[in-house]
Amino acid sequence: MVSENQLQTIERWGVFELSLSGPEDGNPFVEVQLQARFQHTTTTRTVTVEGFYDGNGAYKARFMPDAEGEWSFTVKSGCSELDGAAGHFLCTAPSADNHGPVRVKDADHFGYEDGSKYRPIGTTCYAWTHQSDMLQEQTLQSLADSPFNKIRMCLFPKRYSFNTNEPERFPFEGSREEGFQWTRFNPEYFHRLEKRLVELQQLGIEADLILFHPYDKGHWGFDRMDRDTDLLYLRYVINRLAAFRNVWWSLANEFDFMSNKTMDDWDCFFQFIQEKDPYGHLRSIHNGTKMYDPSQLVLYDHTKPWVTHVSMQYWELSPVTAWRSRYGKPVVVDECCYEGNLPQRWGNITGEDMAARFWEGFARGGYVGHGETFLHPEDVIWWSKGGRLHGESVPRIAFLQRILDELSVEAAPLEAFRDVPTIGVAGVCYLQYYGNHRPAYRELPLPEDASFQIDIIDTWSMEIQTLEGLYSGISRVELPGRPYLAVRARLAT
Amino acid sequence: MVSENQLQTIERWGVFELSLSGPEDGNPFVEVQLQARFQHTTTTRTVTVEGFYDGNGAYKARFMPDAEGEWSFTVKSGCSELDGAAGHFLCTAPSADNHGPVRVKDADHFGYEDGSKYRPIGTTCYAWTHQSDMLQEQTLQSLADSPFNKIRMCLFPKRYSFNTNEPERFPFEGSREEGFQWTRFNPEYFHRLEKRLVELQQLGIEADLILFHPYDKGHWGFDRMDRDTDLLYLRYVINRLAAFRNVWWSLANEFDFMSNKTMDDWDCFFQFIQEKDPYGHLRSIHNGTKMYDPSQLVLYDHTKPWVTHVSMQYWELSPVTAWRSRYGKPVVVDECCYEGNLPQRWGNITGEDMAARFWEGFARGGYVGHGETFLHPEDVIWWSKGGRLHGESVPRIAFLQRILDELSVEAAPLEAFRDVPTIGVAGVCYLQYYGNHRPAYRELPLPEDASFQIDIIDTWSMEIQTLEGLYSGISRVELPGRPYLAVRARLAT
Repeated sequence: MVSENQLQTIERWGVFELSLSGPEDGNPFVEVQLQARFQHTTTTRTVTVEGFYDGNGAYKARFMPDAEGEWSFTVKSGCSELDGAAGHFLCTAPSADNHGPVRVKDADHFGYEDGSKYRPIGTTCYAWTHQSDMLQEQTLQSLADSPFNKIRMCLFPKRYSFNTNEPERFPFEGSREEGFQWTRFNPEYFHRLEKRLVELQQLGIEADLILFHPYDKGHWGFDRMDRDTDLLYLRYVINRLAAFRNVWWSLANEFDFMSNKTMDDWDCFFQFIQEKDPYGHLRSIHNGTKMYDPSQLVLYDHTKPWVTHVSMQYWELSPVTAWRSRYGKPVVVDECCYEGNLPQRWGNITGEDMAARFWEGFARGGYVGHGETFLHPEDVIWWSKGGRLHGESVPRIAFLQRILDELSVEAAPLEAFRDVPTIGVAGVCYLQYYGNHRPAYRELPLPEDASFQIDIIDTWSMEIQTLEGLYSGISRVELPGRPYLAVRARLAT
Repeated sequence: MVSENQLQTIERWGVFELSLSGPEDGNPFVEVQLQARFQHTTTTRTVTVEGFYDGNGAYKARFMPDAEGEWSFTVKSGCSELDGAAGHFLCTAPSADNHGPVRVKDADHFGYEDGSKYRPIGTTCYAWTHQSDMLQEQTLQSLADSPFNKIRMCLFPKRYSFNTNEPERFPFEGSREEGFQWTRFNPEYFHRLEKRLVELQQLGIEADLILFHPYDKGHWGFDRMDRDTDLLYLRYVINRLAAFRNVWWSLANEFDFMSNKTMDDWDCFFQFIQEKDPYGHLRSIHNGTKMYDPSQLVLYDHTKPWVTHVSMQYWELSPVTAWRSRYGKPVVVDECCYEGNLPQRWGNITGEDMAARFWEGFARGGYVGHGETFLHPEDVIWWSKGGRLHGESVPRIAFLQRILDELSVEAAPLEAFRDVPTIGVAGVCYLQYYGNHRPAYRELPLPEDASFQIDIIDTWSMEIQTLEGLYSGISRVELPGRPYLAVRARLAT
């Protein structure tokens, strides 16, 4: 026994990192394996994690403890220099802003593991960690000033319209010119990524990590690696990153546009991650769309048990209602076009439209993701490289967040309101959104035996007009007859 | 032989009406049958039509001749007073504005039988012929001042929100209070309707006659007649109205909301009409929608051979592309919500939205129908009762019509332009519509070996800005970055 003050302390859901020295010769990335078995000393609960080679003879094993108290560990390895290492650490209470990883809660909502509320308000900066340090810092500052608490980002670099700058580092060792070494990773790439993951964590932002994507087309070849290389990559990524509590696994962006992968590949990757990730981080897969033809939409079967939530690209939010019912899982429409002015159809909707898509998605019980694509003289476009936000929707998204926060936490779509998306808790609170429709009035069927305060909310000007008096029973609300209005009724206290 | 100047003359596609006197006793509507066989004397072509009882001992047979020259006819009937009647008439050239009935042309377009162009620009006034004479006259005046050349209208009266006034006459004899006589029709109802059909004809407007609809719910019972009564009604309607060249048969409005009818009923009615109508007028059927759930859309199988064109209710126009390809028939989205301010979701879109739906539908090679639903102190709402138009979309629809007229007549969707709806004739003319998207620029891939004039069209302000100079090859067009723009390129002459 050692006394408590001698032990290394790690807060609950923090990262305990064990570092060992070992051989540098050969290819340690594939030739050396190590496993660390962590045991909670009071409950005898055990978690086994795989270590990874971090270059320069350093071997590491990371562990995210989910219970306070003392944990012990022992290392097993075929390499005698690593085998048998052992120790203890003390898991302390989480700090104020640490609520643990995000989990699916009540079938179709999310929540932090500590039970506190989490409502994803996401944005997209696919390749922000592949840009200059200065630009990455600017992106972090923009995120800090924003309402966003989730970001979609790619591990592999991106080559696409407006994305032609080569990154400095890649997940694999090597370069495009000299070729990549498909069994050796680049620890420096991961060190820099991990720094950003921690910085996101400090901002309260979940990192929805996109593991594969089609924006390569053989330029580097990360979109056409063979199955063994794919799995080696996934294993290395999981061993390094799963201990960060704010990690989500997005198997792919526009998976259906990756012509070198099959449905069987995606099933295999999902199951592999499910098996290898000791913490059960959220797992999803994001579809492409042919914007000109909804009949060509190719969807992964989100009912499969390894999919934790639905990640959808679609330009209309009305199907959220059907998807919630079909899949019985949280529905995140994390791409619904981008606010901007690109020539491409997916990248030139107005701020009004983006804000309206957020309101409709949330009013249907789903979650919506933001993105921005304004032409920029140096192609610094938020959707891909980060930088600064230029659009008009972000303050409206923050306003929506405030309105949702003011509802009861149990707010859910109210089936009785069939023709207009409405969330709330029957008899307690109602929030109804009209979108680009403009009724001259609406009748709200409030309970007869209670009194409600009614607000007319202009979701674009962000003004709230509270009606005089209190309302009960079927209540006619006269509306100003313009688009983008919502009505809220709350039990008078 | 009689000399030409002694013969009655009827213009081609006019109505020749044979009138005979017969018995008044019993129930002549069902007890007396007559058939008239018309023969074109130079080609020996024959057409047999069924007559009908018009009340007060009058029996009539109507015939729409489709060939100029002399026609002879003979009557056959089990009733000796009618049997054996015979005669001749002379079919003359059609008058200037008479182009014959509308037909499907080139698989997915429409055209008049004389070969001249017909592009449906429709509106909806379901129950306009069930209103006061004064209101009907006002509706006709509004139509005369409008761009519309098709109107959707119901034969049965309508009972619905904002539609509670009882009509003066019904297709059947009797009344709601005293009951209807399900084997006796009301000739006076039909005389008045036929007057309106002729007036529409004079305005160049096709009458898309809705034969059944659900807006009754047993109030009168026209939505729940038995099969025999349905067929008796259809037969009487065909015998009276098929000779009017501007008649289309719309089997039902929101057929799927008629809970007393089955798919088999609709198949039966379609086949019955196909068999009984000697002129093959256009036949379609219109679906309802659950506006809150696209997955609940119930569509009739428009590939069935008796369906001449697709009549669709849907609030989005992007599926037009898929429907054209699925059905291989003209696609008319004759209900895409209504411009107005009703509390109901289907009845409160903005003028901008209605105009945008028209532009998108036409730019995808489909046809779109208009409707208007503004609250009115006496519930005189265009969509149902007619009256005056109050919205902002109608001048924009007329402007769209002008722009389409200025394209080559062979304009069709151009498959090469996949991300933005574009119609035209490759190498000759292009019309591309951006809707509520707002690209800062677009590149038009024009042929290298020809010169084009390019216009930027503001579909809302109805302004056309012609760019300086001529363009060839890939041509970058800078756009003002606001919604509702179109770009047109035409071969410079």
